[in-house]
Amino acid sequence: MARKFPEVQPGGSLILAWQIKDKKVLVVGGGEVAAGRILNCLNADASVTVVCPASGLNAEVAFRVAQKQVTHVDRVFEPSDLEGAEMVLVAIDDPVASTVIWKLCKEKKIPANIADVPPECDFYFGSVHRDGPLQIMVSTNGKGPRLAASIRRFIAGKLPRNAGNAVESIGLLRTKLRKVAPNAEDGPKRMRWMSKVSDTYKWDEMCSLTIEDMDNLLLFYPADKVPSMDILLALRGGNDVRKLDVFDGSFGFSVGA
Amino acid sequence: MARKFPEVQPGGSLILAWQIKDKKVLVVGGGEVAAGRILNCLNADASVTVVCPASGLNAEVAFRVAQKQVTHVDRVFEPSDLEGAEMVLVAIDDPVASTVIWKLCKEKKIPANIADVPPECDFYFGSVHRDGPLQIMVSTNGKGPRLAASIRRFIAGKLPRNAGNAVESIGLLRTKLRKVAPNAEDGPKRMRWMSKVSDTYKWDEMCSLTIEDMDNLLLFYPADKVPSMDILLALRGGNDVRKLDVFDGSFGFSVGA
Repeated sequence: MARKFPEVQPGGSLILAWQIKDKKVLVVGGGEVAAGRILNCLNADASVTVVCPASGLNAEVAFRVAQKQVTHVDRVFEPSDLEGAEMVLVAIDDPVASTVIWKLCKEKKIPANIADVPPECDFYFGSVHRDGPLQIMVSTNGKGPRLAASIRRFIAGKLPRNAGNAVESIGLLRTKLRKVAPNAEDGPKRMRWMSKVSDTYKWDEMCSLTIEDMDNLLLFYPADKVPSMDILLALRGGNDVRKLDVFDGSFGFSVGA
Repeated sequence: MARKFPEVQPGGSLILAWQIKDKKVLVVGGGEVAAGRILNCLNADASVTVVCPASGLNAEVAFRVAQKQVTHVDRVFEPSDLEGAEMVLVAIDDPVASTVIWKLCKEKKIPANIADVPPECDFYFGSVHRDGPLQIMVSTNGKGPRLAASIRRFIAGKLPRNAGNAVESIGLLRTKLRKVAPNAEDGPKRMRWMSKVSDTYKWDEMCSLTIEDMDNLLLFYPADKVPSMDILLALRGGNDVRKLDVFDGSFGFSVGA
């Protein structure tokens, strides 16, 4: 029986896509590490507050402050800074002060990361590749941060061009499908058809799908069919689905039905 | 000035490697989705409690219960189940009960995920490739969970064999290095040398590094040098670093010094 189910592989992290949009993230410190953290948070639409004396801001953080991408508090950390914070990221060269902040966060149950102090971290960061809605994160579980970046670059180099577009297309198709078949009772058929779409095309083929392709794809939904990639390509440029040799009519539906 | 720094790409998530070792994760529900969540948590060494009537457990969850991989509470959820929980994952077909649990979690500031209800999620899951200490997570930010799994498989197929071993090796090298050069004042030299190691080898070369290679590599640390991959391969099998033609002596150190 044991072989039937995936074996547990202990020693990993629980990798999560945290939702921090419009939530207050407090960043303590304004150096290079803080700059990286701030960018990560802005890419996730967080409302970032940076606490650091102006003299301690590096060029990138100073730029984000000047551009009003972040709120700047021009002094060292005070406990009142934690008010309303939903996440705290500390990157200062002061282990004693860092530990004090960590303990305050634990009292207030605010998730926190003290840079370079693994025991004072609810979570670690990794190296993230980003392409539109597609995010790929490489974690070495603390064994090699620099190696994580190499692996991330290796993966980015292997991805098809417009990889993010495949994700965008599938998201768009799902949205359009909900308009075509809006009823709750269509749910199972919608899900089944979306799965069929995902299984019919190689995902590197999906990278080149266009909005026209999505609309053509939806023509096949009423019959619960998914055309091959060849048919989809043949339909481009407004070709009529009924006039194509590849379309043999066996799908049992007519366009506009 | 704007061009100097990475541009913000809004709309993503904050991808984190959550540290949940030995912490209580409460899973409410025992179906297929719960089974996936449970495996994720066990892979991160969490202490998992599953709340679900025994009749509702699917085969995989029942197996984990029988193997004592998780603690089982054989009934529906009660608010007291949240006691001590540091994370809550809900996967039941009951939107009303789910929302009640979500609200309780928010009152108690416990991070939570209600499956299939994005507004009731502090975080989403993605599709994770695992190879020892290496974890690669693909997130489509909710646009295509099935596509995320395809992309994950695509990436896994492109990775060199023993990819996880490269991460293991670098972690081992760092540990061994701390024994060779244990003093705090060696910190900057250690970090600089480790960076040099990461930059000298392609990471797919690192996948085949052995423990013997690590020991040979460390011979070059005192001189703050990193040998080429060819030299490292030539040193295998106990070859003496001093007798190799490739080693021209210009490193200015002697073995055992």
